[in-house]
Amino acid sequence: MESKNIPFLAFVLLIFLFVVSSTAAPAGKIKARLPCKRLVFYFHDILFNGRNSKNATSAIVGAPAWANTTIMAGQNHFGDLVVFDDPITLDNNLHSTPVGRAQGFYLYDRKDIFTSWLGFSFVFNSTQHKGSINFAGADPIMDKTRDISVVGGTGDFFMSRGIATLMTDAFEGEVYFRLRVDIKLYECW
Amino acid sequence: MESKNIPFLAFVLLIFLFVVSSTAAPAGKIKARLPCKRLVFYFHDILFNGRNSKNATSAIVGAPAWANTTIMAGQNHFGDLVVFDDPITLDNNLHSTPVGRAQGFYLYDRKDIFTSWLGFSFVFNSTQHKGSINFAGADPIMDKTRDISVVGGTGDFFMSRGIATLMTDAFEGEVYFRLRVDIKLYECW
Amino acid sequence: MESKNIPFLAFVLLIFLFVVSSTAAPAGKIKARLPCKRLVFYFHDILFNGRNSKNATSAIVGAPAWANTTIMAGQNHFGDLVVFDDPITLDNNLHSTPVGRAQGFYLYDRKDIFTSWLGFSFVFNSTQHKGSINFAGADPIMDKTRDISVVGGTGDFFMSRGIATLMTDAFEGEVYFRLRVDIKLYECW
Repeated sequence: MESKNIPFLAFVLLIFLFVVSSTAAPAGKIKARLPCKRLVFYFHDILFNGRNSKNATSAIVGAPAWANTTIMAGQNHFGDLVVFDDPITLDNNLHSTPVGRAQGFYLYDRKDIFTSWLGFSFVFNSTQHKGSINFAGADPIMDKTRDISVVGGTGDFFMSRGIATLMTDAFEGEVYFRLRVDIKLYECW
Repeated sequence: MESKNIPFLAFVLLIFLFVVSSTAAPAGKIKARLPCKRLVFYFHDILFNGRNSKNATSAIVGAPAWANTTIMAGQNHFGDLVVFDDPITLDNNLHSTPVGRAQGFYLYDRKDIFTSWLGFSFVFNSTQHKGSINFAGADPIMDKTRDISVVGGTGDFFMSRGIATLMTDAFEGEVYFRLRVDIKLYECW
Repeated sequence: MESKNIPFLAFVLLIFLFVVSSTAAPAGKIKARLPCKRLVFYFHDILFNGRNSKNATSAIVGAPAWANTTIMAGQNHFGDLVVFDDPITLDNNLHSTPVGRAQGFYLYDRKDIFTSWLGFSFVFNSTQHKGSINFAGADPIMDKTRDISVVGGTGDFFMSRGIATLMTDAFEGEVYFRLRVDIKLYECW
C-alpha cells in the first residue's frame, strides 16, 4: 500500500510545483498580459474661448511668450497648458449622466505636430465605483490610438497599475473634444 | 512505520500549500492590505499674495484668462496653478524644525467647488530619512480625508508604492494651509 | 525501499521550500535590487529666450507675478514652468541622430537654490525601441546625481517601474542644458 502512495505523493508534488511556478510573480520575471480589470469610459472637454464661460470645462492657464490664455497658441499650440474638470460618461453622448469627473491638466509640447502630455485622475463617487484612477503619460494626438500609464489608484482601484488606451472619438475645432479611454489594469489588489 | 509517515507528509504538504498561497503575490490576485511602512508628516504652505515675499513658500504661476497670478481666481480658484517648496514637520507647528521639503505643484480644477490636483515629492536629507517619495492624484479638498497615490520613491523609499491620506489640518483664508499626510506604503523593497 | 523514499521526499520538499521562498515576491518583502533592464540616454534642452524661436525646444509657459515668460525669473527661477520637446540621443552630441523625444514639463520650485520638479516621458518610435517611459520626481539640480521615479511605461516598456539617475552633463547659461539619464528598471513585464 505504501509503495503505491509514494509515487502518488511525488506526482502531487510535481503538479504543485507547476502550479506555484506559474502563478507566483517574482520581480523581474515575465508576467501574463491579461488585465485583471477592464473599463471603458468617455470624457468630454469644452475649452474656454472667451465666450463660453458657462459651458466650458477647461481653461488655458499657461502659454508661451508669443501667445495668451484666451486663444490656443500657434505652432500646434506648443506651450499651452490647460486645466480641466471634464464629465465622464459611459457612452459617447455629452449629455449622458456623468459617472465621474476627469480632473487634471494637459499641455501641448511640440511645435511641428499636435502632441500633448497628460497628468490627471478619474474621480468616481457613485454606487458603481468609488475612488480614483491616476494617469500620466505622453499623448501623440495624431495617432489613432495611444497608450498612457495608470500610475496608481485609490478606493475601488486601490494600488492599481496598468495602461489606458486613448482614442479621439470626436473633436470640433479648438473648442470640443471627446476621448475614449480603454483602461486595462494589470495589477489589482 | 511508513503508514504513519505518509499521512504526516501529506499534512506537511497541506500546511505548505496554505503558507505558499498566502504569501506569494501573483499579478492580479488579492494581496493583504497591510502597510509595510507608515509615516505621518505635516506640511505648511504660505501662498505669495503680493505682500509676503519673504515668508511665502509658494506662488501662483498659471491662471486662467479672467484672473492673474497675484490673487486667487474667482470660481473656486479654477485654473490657478501653484508651485511650492513647503517645509515638512513632524508635528503641526509651522515653527518646528523641518525634516524635509514638499516640492512640486497643485492646481485648482473645478468651478463649482474647491478641488485640486497634486504632483509633488517629499524630499528628505536627514539622518533619519534620505531619499524622496513621489505623489500624484486628485484632492477633493472639501472632503475630510482624501487619498492620493504614492507612485514611486528613491533612496530609503526605493521603488515604494502606496496611498497617502491627506487631511486639511488648518487654513487661514487664502494665504496659509497645513496638510496632514498619512503615508501608507504597501510595496517596499 | 519505502523507508529510503520517505526521507528523500522530505528532502525534495525542503529544497522546494527554499526555492519557492527565494523566488516568490510577496508584497512588503525585500526584493533583489538588480535592474531587469538598463538604458542610458542624453537629452538636450534649448530654452526659448525671445530670439531663438527656430532652435528652441522648450518655452516658459508659467511664471510668478514678479516675472514673465521670456526671461527666467529671479530667486533661482522659482515658479518658472517650462514645457519641452527635447531630442534624445545615444551620446552627448546635440547633433547626433535623435532616437526619441523627451516630452513634458519641468518647474523650478525653490527660492534659495536651483531645484526643479519633472513630469515627462521618453517617447520612442524606432526599430530599436517602440513605446514610452514615464517619469516623475524632484530634481535637486545642484547635486551631482539625483534619482527620479519611473512610474510606468508602454510598448516595449509595458508596465515598467524603476529609477532614473539624472546628471547634468553640460549647461550654457540659461539657454542650453544636457541631461544624462541612466534608467534602471526593476519591474519588467
